[in-house]
This record gives sequence, C-alpha cells and structure tokens, in this order.
Amino acid sequence: MKYSQLFGKPKKDAKAYDTKNATYLIKGGFVDQTMSGVYKYLPLGLKVLNKIEQIVRQEMDKISQEMLLSALSPRELWETTNRAEIDVLFKVRGANEASRMQNDSTYILNPTHEDNITPLVQRFAKSYKEFPIALYQIQNKFRNEARAKSGVLRGREFRMKDLYSFHTNLEDLMDYYEIAKQAYVRVFERLGIGDSTVIALASGGDFTENYSHEFQTFCDAGEDTIFFDETENIWYNREVTPAKAPAYKYDTEMKPRKDVFGENIVSVEKLVEFLKIPIETTIKTLIYTSKDQIYAVAVRGDYEVDEGKLKKVTGKKDLQLADAKTIKQITGAEVGYAGILDLPESVEVICDEALSDMVNFEVGANKTNYHTVNANWGRDITKPSQFFDIKVAKDTDLNPKTGKPYQIKKAAEVGNIFPLETKFSKAFNFKYVTDNGKEEFVYMGSYGIGTTRLVGVIAEIMSDDKGLVWPKQVAPYQVHLISLGKKSEESYLKAEELYQNLKSKGIDILWDDREDASAGEKFADADLIGVPTRLVLSKKTLAEQSIELKLRTDNDSKMVKLDQILEFDF
Amino acid sequence: MKYSQLFGKPKKDAKAYDTKNATYLIKGGFVDQTMSGVYKYLPLGLKVLNKIEQIVRQEMDKISQEMLLSALSPRELWETTNRAEIDVLFKVRGANEASRMQNDSTYILNPTHEDNITPLVQRFAKSYKEFPIALYQIQNKFRNEARAKSGVLRGREFRMKDLYSFHTNLEDLMDYYEIAKQAYVRVFERLGIGDSTVIALASGGDFTENYSHEFQTFCDAGEDTIFFDETENIWYNREVTPAKAPAYKYDTEMKPRKDVFGENIVSVEKLVEFLKIPIETTIKTLIYTSKDQIYAVAVRGDYEVDEGKLKKVTGKKDLQLADAKTIKQITGAEVGYAGILDLPESVEVICDEALSDMVNFEVGANKTNYHTVNANWGRDITKPSQFFDIKVAKDTDLNPKTGKPYQIKKAAEVGNIFPLETKFSKAFNFKYVTDNGKEEFVYMGSYGIGTTRLVGVIAEIMSDDKGLVWPKQVAPYQVHLISLGKKSEESYLKAEELYQNLKSKGIDILWDDREDASAGEKFADADLIGVPTRLVLSKKTLAEQSIELKLRTDNDSKMVKLDQILEFDF
Repeated sequence: MKYSQLFGKPKKDAKAYDTKNATYLIKGGFVDQTMSGVYKYLPLGLKVLNKIEQIVRQEMDKISQEMLLSALSPRELWETTNRAEIDVLFKVRGANEASRMQNDSTYILNPTHEDNITPLVQRFAKSYKEFPIALYQIQNKFRNEARAKSGVLRGREFRMKDLYSFHTNLEDLMDYYEIAKQAYVRVFERLGIGDSTVIALASGGDFTENYSHEFQTFCDAGEDTIFFDETENIWYNREVTPAKAPAYKYDTEMKPRKDVFGENIVSVEKLVEFLKIPIETTIKTLIYTSKDQIYAVAVRGDYEVDEGKLKKVTGKKDLQLADAKTIKQITGAEVGYAGILDLPESVEVICDEALSDMVNFEVGANKTNYHTVNANWGRDITKPSQFFDIKVAKDTDLNPKTGKPYQIKKAAEVGNIFPLETKFSKAFNFKYVTDNGKEEFVYMGSYGIGTTRLVGVIAEIMSDDKGLVWPKQVAPYQVHLISLGKKSEESYLKAEELYQNLKSKGIDILWDDREDASAGEKFADADLIGVPTRLVLSKKTLAEQSIELKLRTDNDSKMVKLDQILEFDF
Repeated sequence: MKYSQLFGKPKKDAKAYDTKNATYLIKGGFVDQTMSGVYKYLPLGLKVLNKIEQIVRQEMDKISQEMLLSALSPRELWETTNRAEIDVLFKVRGANEASRMQNDSTYILNPTHEDNITPLVQRFAKSYKEFPIALYQIQNKFRNEARAKSGVLRGREFRMKDLYSFHTNLEDLMDYYEIAKQAYVRVFERLGIGDSTVIALASGGDFTENYSHEFQTFCDAGEDTIFFDETENIWYNREVTPAKAPAYKYDTEMKPRKDVFGENIVSVEKLVEFLKIPIETTIKTLIYTSKDQIYAVAVRGDYEVDEGKLKKVTGKKDLQLADAKTIKQITGAEVGYAGILDLPESVEVICDEALSDMVNFEVGANKTNYHTVNANWGRDITKPSQFFDIKVAKDTDLNPKTGKPYQIKKAAEVGNIFPLETKFSKAFNFKYVTDNGKEEFVYMGSYGIGTTRLVGVIAEIMSDDKGLVWPKQVAPYQVHLISLGKKSEESYLKAEELYQNLKSKGIDILWDDREDASAGEKFADADLIGVPTRLVLSKKTLAEQSIELKLRTDNDSKMVKLDQILEFDF
C-alpha cells in the first residue's frame, strides 16, 4: 500500500484519551470512534483485527467447526433461560411509526449466544452417537454497558469468538475443557502475549462447583485485579480470592454499649463521619433470604459482601437480598438500620472473618434512625463459633494461607472458559438418548475470546512513548518503507522498484511515498503505526548502495546492501 | 471433514418452504432459520458464504480499501440525512429496566452505511489531493422488512458488501462508477452466474438525473420483474420501464354523463363491482403537491402512479401526496372521490397515456360518495394536449418504441450501484478545498452486493429436483467421497487413505464415512448437498482398482483408476 493512498492516516491533532490503546489506535488511524463504546475499524485496524482473528480461527478449527449465528433473536429464548432481565441486554424494534406499521415485533440483540445455540443443537443432536459437538463463531456482540470505556477494551458493540461444546457427561466436558484451555494458551502465545497472560480462577456461577477460568493479560488499563497465591502458583480473580483482612488495632477495654440517634444516616461513609469513628470499627449487616432460611450477613464497614462466596458458605444457590418488607419484619426497622444484635432466633447470622477480633464495634440498632456503638462479642452478642470469608477481597488483603499480602496485578480479561454443565440444557430441556435408551441432560461448556478487545490489549502492552510496537504476526504490515526525496529523484525510483519487488515476494509492505512530508514526520508516523521493520532509502543510503533498516523494537538502525534486502527475513 | 462429524447434516424430515433456496438450504443443513427473515449459517452454509465473500473481497480490493463500520449508530446521523423516518429502520435500546438504568440511550441499527461513512471521510479528507477515496466493508445489515420471505433472499438481518466512493467532481465519479460496474461484472462471472445476470436500469432517485444500475439474476423466486428493450439492448427495472398500455376496445358512442351515489366506495376494486363496469373504463385521480403547485394526477384504474416518472414529468422533486385537508379544499370531497372534472384552474391535471383513447369513462365526482360515469373527452373536459407515461409498468405493457410487448423476466437483485452525487455531502456539508482554494461539495457513489442473498440466488438457479448443484468456486467442498462398507472392510480403509491424501493435496473433501447409512441414503444426501464431484469407493470398484467418479452436473459416472485419482483436476 502506498501511504499517499492509505485511508486513515495518522492524525497529528488527535487528542489523548484515557487509555493508551484509544490514544494510539485513534491517532494512528487504526480505529475511529462512532460514539461511546462503538468503534469503526479503518483499513490499518481491520488488518490487525483480521490477523488476530485468523490466528484464533486456525486454533479453533483444530478443535471445532465454524458457523455463524444471528445477531437478532426472539425474546422468548431469553425468557426460557431466565435471562430477559440481565442488565446488558439490548432490544430492537422499528425506529419509527412507518417501520412499526410494517412489523412491530421486538427482538433481542444478542450479547452472547448460549440461548441461541442450545436450541439449535437440540434440534440436530438426539442420540449419544452424535456427541461431542463443538461449534464456534466470530461475530459482533452487543452489550448495554453502564460505562463503555478504556478504548476498545470495553465496548457496547464488539467482536468476539465464542465456542460452545456439548457432551453426554461431565467427564467428557472436562476433558474437552482442558483441550480448549490448551488451544487458548496457543492462541495467546501465537499473538505474542503468552508471557503476559495467565489463567486466573473465577467463579463458576450458581450452576457448577467448578471454577471457570479467565485468561488475564497484565495490563495497566485492564479493569480487573488478579491475586497471586505463590504457595499454589495460582492466580485468582477478585471474586474468588480467599481474603483475610490485615490486622487492625482495636481497643483493649470494652466501653458501655449505647444507641445513637442518627436520622437518615444509612451509608457507611455518612455514618463514620457522623459518629467520628474509624470505618474498621463498623459492621454492615445485610438481610438475605433463600426459599427456606433468612440470613443476617455481616461484613466490616469497609468491605462488600461477595455473593458468590456467601452462596458457597450457606450452600444456598437461590440466595437474594431481602426486600424492604421482609427487612422491616425481621429487624423492626426500615432499610439501612439492620444489625446482628437481638435478632429473632429464626435468623441465621453469618459473620465475615474480619469481625472476629473487633472490640467496641458499631452495628445497626434494628431501630429506624438508630445505630448501636461499642457493641462487643460475649457481652452483647454471643461470639459466633465460626467466622467465614464472605467479603470481596481488597488489594491489601492477606492470603490466609501465608498471612502475607498477595502479589496483585492489573489485568485485562482476553478470554474465558466456562463449564456451564447443565444450566442451559435444563432450561431448554435438552436431553439426549443414551446407549441404554434413557434420556439424560446434555453437558455444555462455553469459551470466549474478545477479538476487538485483543486489538486494544496488544496496543496497550506493545507500545512505547512514540507509539505502537506490533508483534510481527498481527502487525498491519511487515515492512514500512520510507523514501526520502522527490518523485524525480533516484531514491524514489529505487524505492518504487523495491516496493514492487517486496510486494511480489508476498511481503505486506507500506511505502511512505509522500513528497510533501519531512523525514522527521515520516519517522514519527512510522513509530506511531508500529510496523516491525522500517526501511529508509535516501540519497545518502543509495550512495552506499544500501538501505537503512531499523526494527521498531530497537533503538539502533543498521545499513543493509540493497541486493541483500530482498532476501531478508522480515 | 468426515461426514460423521459434520454438524448440520441433511434433515430428511425438513418441510418444504415457499422457495427452493429455503427448502434446499435448510434441508441440506446449510442454514437454520432463527425466525422470520433471520438465519444462522451452519458449517456447510458458512463455507459457501465465505467463498462468495472471498471472491467479492478480491475484486473489491482491486478498486478500494476494506474497513469495518459499526452496526450501531447515533440517531442524529439519520436525522441529519432526513432518513430517521425510513420504514426499514430499527432502533436499539436497553431491553429491560435494569439495562435502561445503566444506559438509556437509543441507537439506530444500520440498514446501510452512507449516513455513517460520509462524516467519517469528512473528518479525514479535506483537500482535493486526498481524493478519490473508495472504501468498502462486508458486514451485517438490519432492515425491518414488512414481510421477510423467499428464504435468504430477503432478510431482516443479512450480510452485504457495501462500497462507497468519494470524488471531487461528477466526471471522476462517473469514471469510477464504470470501474465499479466492471468489477461487479467480474464478481458475478467468477461466481458462475455471469450468464444469468444482467444490468438493469433503475431510478436514480431524487438527486440525480442519471440512472442507477441493478445487477439482476434471472430467477423465478426473485422479487423483481425486468423488461427487455431489444431495440436498444437494455433491461429496465419496472419503475423506469417506458410503458404503453395495450389497446382496449372502448365504446364508439358517447353515453349521457351522470353522477352515481355510492357510499364509501373508494377502492377501484369495490367501485368496478358496484358500478359493474370494466376496470379499463375507470380513472384513478390522486392529488399531489409540490411547494408551488398542486397536481391532479390521473391513471387508469388498473394502474398505479409511478412517482419517479411523475417527478420527472413535472420536474418537481419535492412532490408528495396531498393530505386530507388539502384534498377537501381542492376537490370539495373527502379522500377517495377526487376526479379530473371541474377542478379549480390552479390545479394542473397530468394524465397518463392510457387515458387518451378512453370513451365513457368513470371518474371521481369531487363530491363525497359520488362517482361520475360516462364522462368523455371534449364534451365533459377538454382533452389534454399532452398525455404522459406516469404509470408503474405492468408485465403486459408494450414498449412504446416497438408497440410490442416486452420480453420480461423474473429476477433477483444481487447488486446495485448508485451515483449518489451530492445527496449525502450536502446533508453533512461535506466540502473539499480545490486547488484554487475554493470549497466544493464532494461527489459520492455507493455500490452494494448482498452476499447472503447470493447464497440464496445461486441455490435457486444452480439446483435440480434432487438438490443443490454448486459451481466449483463456491461449493462447500470440491469432492464428496462416499465409502460403502463397514470400518473393517478394505473399501473403508482405502477411502480413509484417499481422504487423507486428497486433504494433504489441499483439496476440500467431505468423506461420508457412515457405517449405518445405506448407499441410497448416501447418494441422496450427496445430491442434496451438491458438491461438484462425487467419488464412490466400494468392494466392486476396488476389485477393478478403481473409483467411481460422477460430476453433480452429469447423469453418468465413470470409473477412474485409483492411482490416477490423486492427479485429477477437481
């Protein structure tokens, strides 16, 4: 491609964005923002995206078959799986009266495809003989994110490779799950981010005892924090990190318990300001219900409840926050004043481990507008025989095994794999016939890789203060040729000859053929675009029958004889 | 691919649909209907789609650069181009309360991308030096069609290649337009439908005096009818076909004019039943307005007004149907009783040519619930000095040049090219700076090819009563190998060897390795899937050290020696 003809040249006047990937990808002419969370891929960006997707495709083809599902789906599918109310769901309907006159149906714009592929495979696969089945697609996904940010890392419209597998039993699913995991490892290695990418354990959700796994790439712009347990050589994502609060120096003497009137003081922030006490001496109590039990769940004021952990501790998958009416009934108070003292016996109290050493703590008074201070274990409430880890881990929390802080890293999730087991097959009543003629539920797994997010993650971690530094295998071009001089000069003619020769050898080459740009501008643009090898041809290099070669990753250039450059391994 | 592992095997129990493409593509396991107008592409179907898109891509890469626009866009873009009210537009919004709490924006799901690409190119191209620019993408489009039908020929979600070009003047646009036209010709030739595809003239819309051009493939399931003018060797689509109504035998004597009371008789169908007169003796009068003129537009009862022709005849691009209030004001009657008799002088009457020979005709009485019968030129109204062709052509209409019927064909539109000129650049005030430093509007063209529709069109015309007959270049596989016999038999082992050998030679091969299917079943499935070459290996052929080869297009098979089959040019 001749640079003069390239659409989407670097824009000198582009502003800086919140993340490096947005700044460089926009400035470099790789993407263009349509609106918050929605991007266009300009020719340079599409080349990178295509190369990433081609690597993903090659590895997926080894373990599955490609297909293409639809972006639109009927709402009924989402009702069948109880997912019509998930908070990222978009609906589609005629945009105006004329359109709705033609057809007034409302559709769902798929954020993911389990709800679509399960009934499809159900129609085709009836007998155990037809399993396992593994299908994938690379397609747009649409999610109504609260805040679309971090450039192409989190979008409302983005591209994803999603693979779904179907099995006759859990063992076969878990065998395939390992195969998929290895395929993912190969993908990230081939993309050049293998060294920066780790597998982190994540929640398996309500429907499996197993963990799911996230592929997390170390990246400052990433939205996740992952925690390293060096005793087991395991990374955890925050929601499943075993967490022990660091020690806090509490009082040694108990003070008299009293109830303090504080009207409408319901948030912890307001409370500590009002009572002028450290947040570490406050207890937050939340009322949860399952179909057969009510729980008062208590964490220290500076923590949040981790519902995944709580469900595991209670063994209740249907746990949910109680409504205002139930809270009033249980505590006698409006929402915001619940505490663990003096609750009815029917309520089971679950306390986080950070509570065990507390002395003179604050707790809701179970009386509207009142807060109890200087409550104490033993004197005011029996100290529980057991404390649990039911909190969302904080960066500073300790590994309970070592008692030391975790090594933590900011990271971006580039892939995840999920043992769905029978969640979706049960929703659709998808059973197969066993070799004994019995009917059993199908086991499923799902496996995602965000391909547009990968463009952003690679841009984040493969860049320096001058611009992007693409690894060879995903770079938009292999060679960035710069000729210095006017069209009439020999350096231009030689450059044209070289451009044609390299092209005919199948090398992806970008030739900066501009007459009206300075050497400095051309070098700056080359650094910004980040093609792995830069070649410069000028009067000076020609005098030596040579060309200057510089790798984007190196600071130094070297001279290569013109007759050798055609044989170079770019 | 081993047939036993293929997802989406032919379904024997699949029902027949309204079109061959739907029936065969669904039955053959190429596509699956998600809902009306929305399809999934199963592995076989995706292979065909990919091959089609690859051919399209190769030809487009010769004349433009590929990029990828977004499917979502802000509504404001559509308001800028005055297209927010077009009847196929879909909008997107959070599907539930939780989603709308996160973000309650409403977006447009793009049915086409002129409104998106124009402001993009505007941001990048300012000077005449940066033109021409030609960009294309292959992406999903979404259109809220009134009735999605004819299989994958007309969908609410479909894939399309859309190219947009930008020029500094009309001449440069039209030069490129020719280049694009030739690229389209190559695409359809390479797809194997060149002989069945013609270029038909179509309307250029309100904003150009030029025609647009449609690539129409002869196809019984197609929604269009095209008309051939043999004197000029030109195909017209219906809306621009010059049309002369065939002669009709009218009365020779005038009868007395009278007004007939017929309450609420407003449609032609009801009218002819009520008055018991031939439809050819009725006149339909429609009131149109432009900003400076009111028109009474009259066509024979069995015709419709062609607004494109009418706009050309009147020279008024802003022409639109009058509202009820204006009609009442002009005719004195409610909607449905307008006629050309006794109208105010300020109203210009435009009559279709089919009206010129009418005798004793019916016409609206300009009085609510009344119809005038036996009206006549000269006696009841001055015969216009000129009649025009302002009607939508009927299949039986005559070519005015020859006075003979047209040769007509049913066809499916597989591509269209459109000289947009300055329609969109004016909407966005997109100007470039000329070499004299002046500012001029940019000229644009748009060029579309429906790639999923092409899957359907090729299936329609390349099929017989047994199934699909794919041309080599788009077939999902080149070779369909059938082995007859159990896994333990030599024919199976030989087949496996051949399968591996052909695969390693880069030949796309599908091997029907089933043990539990009969020869008849296997042959029927092969015919249905339509791979160009079928190979059969059995005990019988092995006895001759041979394999049976049959082309899908032939009825006869031949025996080929096993040691020669590897060298065969599939």
